[in-house]
Amino acid sequence: MDKRAIGVFDSGMGGLTAVKRLIEVLPGEDIIYLGDTGRVPYGGRSRETIIEYSRQDIAFLRSFDIKCIVAACGTVSTVALEAIENDYPIPIYGVAGMAAKAAAKATRNGRIGLIGTKASIGSGAYNRLILAELPEAEVIGRACPLFVPLVENGRVGVDDEVLRLVAEDYLEPIKRAGVDTLIMGCTHYPIIRAMIGRVMGDNVTLIDPGGETAVYVSERLKNAGMLSGCTKGERRYYVTDSPDGFGEMARLFLGSGDAYDISQVTINNF
Amino acid sequence: MDKRAIGVFDSGMGGLTAVKRLIEVLPGEDIIYLGDTGRVPYGGRSRETIIEYSRQDIAFLRSFDIKCIVAACGTVSTVALEAIENDYPIPIYGVAGMAAKAAAKATRNGRIGLIGTKASIGSGAYNRLILAELPEAEVIGRACPLFVPLVENGRVGVDDEVLRLVAEDYLEPIKRAGVDTLIMGCTHYPIIRAMIGRVMGDNVTLIDPGGETAVYVSERLKNAGMLSGCTKGERRYYVTDSPDGFGEMARLFLGSGDAYDISQVTINNF
Repeated sequence: MDKRAIGVFDSGMGGLTAVKRLIEVLPGEDIIYLGDTGRVPYGGRSRETIIEYSRQDIAFLRSFDIKCIVAACGTVSTVALEAIENDYPIPIYGVAGMAAKAAAKATRNGRIGLIGTKASIGSGAYNRLILAELPEAEVIGRACPLFVPLVENGRVGVDDEVLRLVAEDYLEPIKRAGVDTLIMGCTHYPIIRAMIGRVMGDNVTLIDPGGETAVYVSERLKNAGMLSGCTKGERRYYVTDSPDGFGEMARLFLGSGDAYDISQVTINNF
Repeated sequence: MDKRAIGVFDSGMGGLTAVKRLIEVLPGEDIIYLGDTGRVPYGGRSRETIIEYSRQDIAFLRSFDIKCIVAACGTVSTVALEAIENDYPIPIYGVAGMAAKAAAKATRNGRIGLIGTKASIGSGAYNRLILAELPEAEVIGRACPLFVPLVENGRVGVDDEVLRLVAEDYLEPIKRAGVDTLIMGCTHYPIIRAMIGRVMGDNVTLIDPGGETAVYVSERLKNAGMLSGCTKGERRYYVTDSPDGFGEMARLFLGSGDAYDISQVTINNF
């Protein structure tokens, strides 16, 4: 048994979709979440800046006694993680690596679609991760920069005309390329899973990186005898901008209207 | 004559729409521009964070010998400027104040529409600025958070269906309220002036804060005998994230494909 918490960080609030899945599969674990809301989004920033911000986020989480870290941010886990993950004495699980494994397992025709932020797609890291699992895979990637602002402005319904037009613009070329699996490579995308599924069709398997990571972490902790042994874990949330509005975002991403233990942190101290 | 440069800052690249207008009306002036691209956007952040970031931006500009500063960011000039403008020995012109003056002058029926980021609209600062000019004015404000990502993703044409749907959603309630003047209270909005004008109709006067500010600064410098006396000024551009992609954004906002003197600055040193 290991009562230390699991640390989770993201550029903003989207990483709560991964926390939601972690709570589902590991209800007894304590979770400490950092959302870098003062500097969100990472997606359009340079590699150097994303690495610097990630190091600060990890330094903050490591100011607590934690047993592992989940990099819930698609951008961090593709752009920065390879460069920094070996600098720390505890495991850091990037959602991208877990999604690549799941996609390689799910595909039947070897054609894997990938959607994410400009930085995630541009880094080529997802491609490297997928090819390491399945060397004959063909990856059809597409940056979908408007999905995040649409989700954050509540345009998430399957009947939303703007979301539909944008989703068709982004996804139809990927569909035409004949993929049978699509990695939703950004924390926000599972929120619009219904629309993505509608455009892609029933024959395409959608991979949710946060969900895959939650399952993987769960197995690793079980196998290593490192579960907390508790029935219900505690969750503490930290943000780098004002916590105002956290409740609204939490309802969107965490899907729950519960009360939250939420605090603000000065990230430049880390 | 005063050969010192004019400092201009913005949360990102949108402030270049104000620089464009400054170059048009004051071609002989040197301009130093700071775009805080490492922390853009300011629009959704807390007042405290926006004030802190603005102070750093101003401190950077003041590391040069400048004669005045233009706060080109709608969010800064509404949320932060009132709190900090008197702390400096040179004038700081906020685009919001100039736009409020112009709108009060332009309206015939006293009903003024206002669009901007959530923070700009939520601060109520534009309302105070307009009422100070025209106490009987009625201000109909609306946050339009999707306009910035749409512009930055090139969805700027009058034939863009997504932009049209979003613009109609945002603007039709303002139009129905009977405004005869609309302040485009965010640097990005002049780029989609054609679509905004199409939805609002020919009878509504559109106010471009950057343009109004350029004219005001020009008059102030002329009256004070503080023009540079040069024929063609130099422009230096600084960003807080990687300068990669600056050219593309400069073409979008500055409307020119010229070569640029562009450098990166570490804003946390200021």
